[in-house]
Amino acid sequence: MALTVDLLNRADEAQFSEGLRGTYEHSPWVVERTYAARPFVTLAALKRAMVEVVRNATADEQLALIRAHPQLAGRAMQAATLTRESTDEQSRAGLTQCTPDELARIARLNADYDARFGFPFILAVRGPRGLGLSKAEIFATFARRLGHLPHFERAEALRNIHRIAEIRLDEKLAFSPVLGDRVWDWAEQLARHSDDGYGERGELTVTYLTNAHRAVAGQLAAWMRDECGFDEVSIDAVGNVVAVYHGGDRDVPRLLTGSHYDTVRNGGKYDGRLGVLVPMAAVRELARAGRRLPFGIEVVGFAEEEGQRYRATFLGSSALTGRFDGRWLDQADANGITMRDAMARAQLRVDDIAQLRRDPARYLAFIEVHIEQGPVLTEADIPLGIVTSINGSLRYAGEIVGMASHAGTTPMNGRHDAAAAAAEAVLHVEKRASQVPGVVGTVGMLDVPNGSINVVPGRCRFSLDIRAPEDRARDACAVDVLDAMQRICARRGVHLSIQETMRASAAPCDDAWRARWERAVAALGVPVHRLPSGAGHDAMKLHEVMPQAMLFVRGQNGGISHNPLESITNDDADLAVRAFAGLVDALAAERR
Amino acid sequence: MALTVDLLNRADEAQFSEGLRGTYEHSPWVVERTYAARPFVTLAALKRAMVEVVRNATADEQLALIRAHPQLAGRAMQAATLTRESTDEQSRAGLTQCTPDELARIARLNADYDARFGFPFILAVRGPRGLGLSKAEIFATFARRLGHLPHFERAEALRNIHRIAEIRLDEKLAFSPVLGDRVWDWAEQLARHSDDGYGERGELTVTYLTNAHRAVAGQLAAWMRDECGFDEVSIDAVGNVVAVYHGGDRDVPRLLTGSHYDTVRNGGKYDGRLGVLVPMAAVRELARAGRRLPFGIEVVGFAEEEGQRYRATFLGSSALTGRFDGRWLDQADANGITMRDAMARAQLRVDDIAQLRRDPARYLAFIEVHIEQGPVLTEADIPLGIVTSINGSLRYAGEIVGMASHAGTTPMNGRHDAAAAAAEAVLHVEKRASQVPGVVGTVGMLDVPNGSINVVPGRCRFSLDIRAPEDRARDACAVDVLDAMQRICARRGVHLSIQETMRASAAPCDDAWRARWERAVAALGVPVHRLPSGAGHDAMKLHEVMPQAMLFVRGQNGGISHNPLESITNDDADLAVRAFAGLVDALAAERR
Repeated sequence: MALTVDLLNRADEAQFSEGLRGTYEHSPWVVERTYAARPFVTLAALKRAMVEVVRNATADEQLALIRAHPQLAGRAMQAATLTRESTDEQSRAGLTQCTPDELARIARLNADYDARFGFPFILAVRGPRGLGLSKAEIFATFARRLGHLPHFERAEALRNIHRIAEIRLDEKLAFSPVLGDRVWDWAEQLARHSDDGYGERGELTVTYLTNAHRAVAGQLAAWMRDECGFDEVSIDAVGNVVAVYHGGDRDVPRLLTGSHYDTVRNGGKYDGRLGVLVPMAAVRELARAGRRLPFGIEVVGFAEEEGQRYRATFLGSSALTGRFDGRWLDQADANGITMRDAMARAQLRVDDIAQLRRDPARYLAFIEVHIEQGPVLTEADIPLGIVTSINGSLRYAGEIVGMASHAGTTPMNGRHDAAAAAAEAVLHVEKRASQVPGVVGTVGMLDVPNGSINVVPGRCRFSLDIRAPEDRARDACAVDVLDAMQRICARRGVHLSIQETMRASAAPCDDAWRARWERAVAALGVPVHRLPSGAGHDAMKLHEVMPQAMLFVRGQNGGISHNPLESITNDDADLAVRAFAGLVDALAAERR
Repeated sequence: MALTVDLLNRADEAQFSEGLRGTYEHSPWVVERTYAARPFVTLAALKRAMVEVVRNATADEQLALIRAHPQLAGRAMQAATLTRESTDEQSRAGLTQCTPDELARIARLNADYDARFGFPFILAVRGPRGLGLSKAEIFATFARRLGHLPHFERAEALRNIHRIAEIRLDEKLAFSPVLGDRVWDWAEQLARHSDDGYGERGELTVTYLTNAHRAVAGQLAAWMRDECGFDEVSIDAVGNVVAVYHGGDRDVPRLLTGSHYDTVRNGGKYDGRLGVLVPMAAVRELARAGRRLPFGIEVVGFAEEEGQRYRATFLGSSALTGRFDGRWLDQADANGITMRDAMARAQLRVDDIAQLRRDPARYLAFIEVHIEQGPVLTEADIPLGIVTSINGSLRYAGEIVGMASHAGTTPMNGRHDAAAAAAEAVLHVEKRASQVPGVVGTVGMLDVPNGSINVVPGRCRFSLDIRAPEDRARDACAVDVLDAMQRICARRGVHLSIQETMRASAAPCDDAWRARWERAVAALGVPVHRLPSGAGHDAMKLHEVMPQAMLFVRGQNGGISHNPLESITNDDADLAVRAFAGLVDALAAERR
């Protein structure tokens, strides 16, 4: 008889342990302690309970758990300790059929890794889709993780252990994240299209109105029409892919959702696209079930958000809010092609852009699903997060001018060191931003122009980026930081010049719609974790005309983004589709 | 009857005030307060006493003194306030015969300057040689000083006021710094020779064995022989110009002195050369008086110290200590010319280099006069300084590796910011070095490679330079700084790598010889001011084989060096010659 959450909830301790034996390698204590957390509302809740047991364990216990795992393709001495599960996992990755050269290489990597970290290299070799990583991927990951800092790598090892356990649990409970698999596979297929030159280098780059960009739009439209059962699918005058699944009555208001399908240069597969694919997967289920709701669902794949080809950003969502600036059309790309020409070549009708403006009265809200692009969820081991606000941001370019002088002959008390003043400023930014939750402050560029080893720095240039969930918190931080910089520079007898280069308002998510995301997430048995969005999103633009709320999905690999290592698991994608569907279901119940 | 120091020492208060009236523009209080400091052993002591009165005055009094000066070429409204002296000074600089355009330009500069600093631009327009600056020099200085920081510019105004007073005092007491004038004029004549290309750009660059370099050597040798009365003058196998003034007995030991005559690229006229010209001027006086001493004086113009053409440095002094490394001969310059070829073209006999080694038993010591190349003496308003030690130095190249991440999405407590860690390190260097007098620590290069405004820095590179009068203090500082950096990086979860790139031992000046410099300086009525040498000098090399001691001469323009603004006054040069002569006289008395 197949194991179910229900059976586990009703099992005694021995049955429970037996049922989940081997989920965490050679570490039955994880299952034993999880027993106390019954009942579990879902498989996701069970997974979370086990994660919490490990998170609450002592550092020694965590280390023992890590060390309980076999080395990757380890030698005979480990054979005795290999569980059936780990043998199966390693064999799916081809690691049981290595050439002597590959074995030697793995042995060397294992030795280096053990010398550096003191525990075996642990990788969920079945990967984010559960099908098994290639040997090339495994080698690359191994080499990359050898460069990690020890404390980060230990956390990464535990995260891989949780992923291994997740896949084992899915199999034990005969669960297949089919909705997530669909989203994951769609994203993979879209990633085959890349701008000329980039794809050949194995990079993903899709910028506004290139051939690859048009191909992605066409593919999305085809899936929406042919696979998902949308009623209307079209590509609009700025290149947005727009799909409508009508409500029971065609004239009922619509729920607007979506995200962008363009990418940064050498970017990831999920930034933007996940927010198009998740609603597509949810609508597909509705259409297959023939369900009509008391509202329509309009999914938009925004053509442009990243500002890679032209200086303007958020072209797609700006068209919907009526803020598409006609002057942008005269901007030229690096090859001198104006946006107007690029649009004409793509057969987009510039004259129709004004008509893309949506009437807010016809929409309930805009909701957006997005990969987090940060480390918060992955460090908390939580698959979904509810966005509280899209942070407001301020950017500055600064320069400190002191007095260059001989490093050997200028006494410490006779210096006007521009870099030392900048150093003090950097630490003040860090300290001030840390004092208020949600506020972040960054000096990302820092440089002594033409510095010499034996010259006290006469100049130091730096950038400053401050963000906060509310404009007030952002501005208060900026005022304090700029004040402090002036004081630091005055005290040191150096001169500060600093210019504001960018200012974007915070977009707090609508309380009612945020609560709907929270209820949908809670119903899945996933902890409700709230976090601000540090990056800007299309929802920031729609915010100007209607309520908006966002759901974040955990990123793998430390949450890295704008990078080929950007990744999500099929299980997390599955939860995202279920959260979206749950919100839609609850909304339907509300409005009936 | 001419005014003399003697008369002033015997004058009553009214006579004293009358005699020195107008020394400090419209500010009789300076003279009045100086009266209490009588008697003065020399004119230099009187000058110093007046400087001290101003240094000890309140900030308001100092500002009033500055404001008592007329604007440069000011309009009619100032005519009534112009003293005879300042009219004369401005007329020598041609400022009383300006074109309307020039007057308009000066008026604009005066207005800008007053708006920035709140006091008139004050320049000792008679300049460092007392003959009057050109209008072009005045305009350039004006524009440059407009860019100064306010506190520095106020000190610079006071220093110019002291220089104006010095020239007025020289005239009142009918004193002419003829020895200093000679040194100053020699330096000016040598500066006419510059390497091809540099001279045309108005820059001074004389690197090893170029045509300009050979011309300077020839000129020095000619002066030594024809003007100074040395007994033997020659150019040795590495290009050093060597001149001997024999003692009464040709076999008595010699006092060795000198410095280098090569320059850095676009350098100054005094760095090195002053240490050749000062002894030349002193020996000239001995020869003219027909005096023979109980020791010989050997003056060496070292051919190379700066390491500009070849990577090797201190070629000249290394030959004298027997440490000229034969492998240097195979180094090539930027044009591929090896040192060996360059020497052959200059008709230097490489085979004779080994014979240049001096037998320390035949020498009393090496003494060196050098421009300070730093701000200590000019900020103290003291013309000469006694070097305690040539600092030992340590240099490092460092890199901090953290984790690059999104500036908007990475919470403050989840960061591994390489630049913030470097900032903390920079401030620690500054703090630790400041704790021990004489120790200096500098991070001269600092840079986040490929930093972006919206990325938390993942890497930061920096340089570190630590110097101290004793190796122990230098090493203790280095150990503390490196320890602290490791702690900072460990706490922040970032990785530090740092490599030592240079290590030079401290060369403490010989106590007995340092005391001789001190007595010679004190006898001139100049305060004895001791300071370490932050830069390396030829004396550092001679230190390896014999006692050495150095005298520093105040640099103008904030003590700037390795720069065309490097400058000294004829009065300071005069004191340097007198200090050298005084040391020689006292040594003669000792050894008789």
